[in-house]
Amino acid sequence: MHEVFFESITKQLNVFITGVGNVGERLVEQIKQQKKYLKDNLKINLRVVGLSNSRTMIFNGGGISLKNWKEDLSNGEKASLEGFFENAKSLNLRNSIFVDVTANKDVAGLYEKYLRESIAVVACNKIACSSTFSNYKELKRLSLKYNAPFLFETNVGAGLPIIDTLGNLIASGDKVTSIQAVLSGSLNFVFNNFNDTTKFYDVVKQAAAEGYTEPDPRIDLSGVDVARKILILARESGVTMDLEDIENIPFLSKAGLESNSVDDFYQTLIDDESHYQSLFASAKAKDCQLKYVAKFDNGKASVSLQEIPKGHPFYNLEGSDNIVMFYTERYSQQPMIIKGAGAGADVTASGLFADIIRLGNN
Amino acid sequence: MHEVFFESITKQLNVFITGVGNVGERLVEQIKQQKKYLKDNLKINLRVVGLSNSRTMIFNGGGISLKNWKEDLSNGEKASLEGFFENAKSLNLRNSIFVDVTANKDVAGLYEKYLRESIAVVACNKIACSSTFSNYKELKRLSLKYNAPFLFETNVGAGLPIIDTLGNLIASGDKVTSIQAVLSGSLNFVFNNFNDTTKFYDVVKQAAAEGYTEPDPRIDLSGVDVARKILILARESGVTMDLEDIENIPFLSKAGLESNSVDDFYQTLIDDESHYQSLFASAKAKDCQLKYVAKFDNGKASVSLQEIPKGHPFYNLEGSDNIVMFYTERYSQQPMIIKGAGAGADVTASGLFADIIRLGNN
Repeated sequence: MHEVFFESITKQLNVFITGVGNVGERLVEQIKQQKKYLKDNLKINLRVVGLSNSRTMIFNGGGISLKNWKEDLSNGEKASLEGFFENAKSLNLRNSIFVDVTANKDVAGLYEKYLRESIAVVACNKIACSSTFSNYKELKRLSLKYNAPFLFETNVGAGLPIIDTLGNLIASGDKVTSIQAVLSGSLNFVFNNFNDTTKFYDVVKQAAAEGYTEPDPRIDLSGVDVARKILILARESGVTMDLEDIENIPFLSKAGLESNSVDDFYQTLIDDESHYQSLFASAKAKDCQLKYVAKFDNGKASVSLQEIPKGHPFYNLEGSDNIVMFYTERYSQQPMIIKGAGAGADVTASGLFADIIRLGNN
Repeated sequence: MHEVFFESITKQLNVFITGVGNVGERLVEQIKQQKKYLKDNLKINLRVVGLSNSRTMIFNGGGISLKNWKEDLSNGEKASLEGFFENAKSLNLRNSIFVDVTANKDVAGLYEKYLRESIAVVACNKIACSSTFSNYKELKRLSLKYNAPFLFETNVGAGLPIIDTLGNLIASGDKVTSIQAVLSGSLNFVFNNFNDTTKFYDVVKQAAAEGYTEPDPRIDLSGVDVARKILILARESGVTMDLEDIENIPFLSKAGLESNSVDDFYQTLIDDESHYQSLFASAKAKDCQLKYVAKFDNGKASVSLQEIPKGHPFYNLEGSDNIVMFYTERYSQQPMIIKGAGAGADVTASGLFADIIRLGNN
């Protein structure tokens, strides 16, 4: 008999999840719901062995029962990032995966330690991949050295298969010539709802209330969040680049850009309504839609608000949809396009789920 | 130290490729070109250990040198499908992968034997997956039983990440409600070039000359090829379906449908020019484009020529582009869309390449 692809017949994956807010909760529920499917159809035994929110954490090397996981977690021990890592390390389980469903800088700072213990990292948090190039490269190096995959599909476009697809293009020898993309669910929401019958302040407030923006909306509206995303795509295309290399042409008013607090910022939106109305009026006069666009071209990247004419693939982008157009040596005439909901708890959780499955799928 | 994800530091993948025509040749060249990249960046040692075309075959358990592979292959032993299998089996290499780059029924008939030897199968050939449901299911069962992955991303949309994406949606518990797609590069080419200044016969002849159609163009023009593709997507969505369950509304003339040979068929295209012109005239009168559309909805599937109005995502589909729209429980408002070149040797080879990498990627 031929040697088998893998030693064990069913592959056990041991998952440590930190951050069980909106997205993390959906991920745990998806795992609970799909446990049997994965065993029957993919021979993956997916177990949650550690769970943490910012207050408490629980562990069970034999697999946490997910029946009453919220209640069990609330009765857990006091949470600490180092404590979570130490527990994951000491459980010493084969095929351990640390899943970061936070947006926390300190959590991202611990990936190195996880990777050095050969614990795979799956991150929704995009801080690590958009940090300094040297840190990004070091995490890639450690991942390779310790045979611990480091996956972050949901950093761009939530559950859309953007980073995995880009990785496959590059691995097979294709070369990216240009990327054009709309990557912000929050900015889409804002500019799909802002017009001469609404007020910019009200629309941003509504976006915040519906959970489309970060608690500090300046991270979205300043373009920093989109700049991080195009940076990650540029890096995954094989380019050495840092956040400050990305040209960021702001659309915020001067006072908005210089505001010192979230409250101050919101006040500038009220004060500078005429500034925002003029952006809308300019686009309307040209029969254009306002879209916040990220570009990577010829080794250079930029983010800016653009007036998009009818017929352009970005023109009809609705809701919180994202779109990425990859022009490559092989997709040179027309781009490869991936489009769909780029925000939302369920689709982001399913993107994390896909990354986890990639670790057990063969 | 933590147990590592995999035993060996560099994972060796041993590839047996049968069919080195247009696509297969590009695949071998891509492997040759990317060998170092894969080792350095993914720790995959990708070796071609068997090669065959319809005339000759060569093997080298230590890895075939790809320097003069065409010449070496032409000096190989006489090819036979069973002989190729026996060699793959007797080499007995860990992580063996059989890659089928043919459109041959007899090759597809051997997958079962490969899988039973725990040899993974990567197929561009869509005959197996669009054969009887029981055969498709049996291959899935054997793949699982013998830990031998069976991947066929390029069966639909060449290098576009359609089947992998669908698989990840389903694995994470999403449910497909509807699929709408344009999946034929050849029919796109035909209907993008056919109008009231061209002749249908000439356009089909040109499509054949440029390699867009099968040697027998009826396989494309009858809709059978597209029906096979939507069948595969329906099955991968979790539905039990056979080819005869798909409603196929033909656009060919009666004589074209009933022709007994390729030559006879081409003659009907000349004779029935007015029939084809009337299809074009009807669409033109409504300001529509003719597109050959595959649908899967509510458990039912169909393929037919459609008059697509302006503004529809299919309207501007150029060249040999394919597009798939997935409506699911999670992508319910707007679909997830994947679009791009759906035919061509380089993009199809890179789709095969992606499947091979999936087997060594974690």
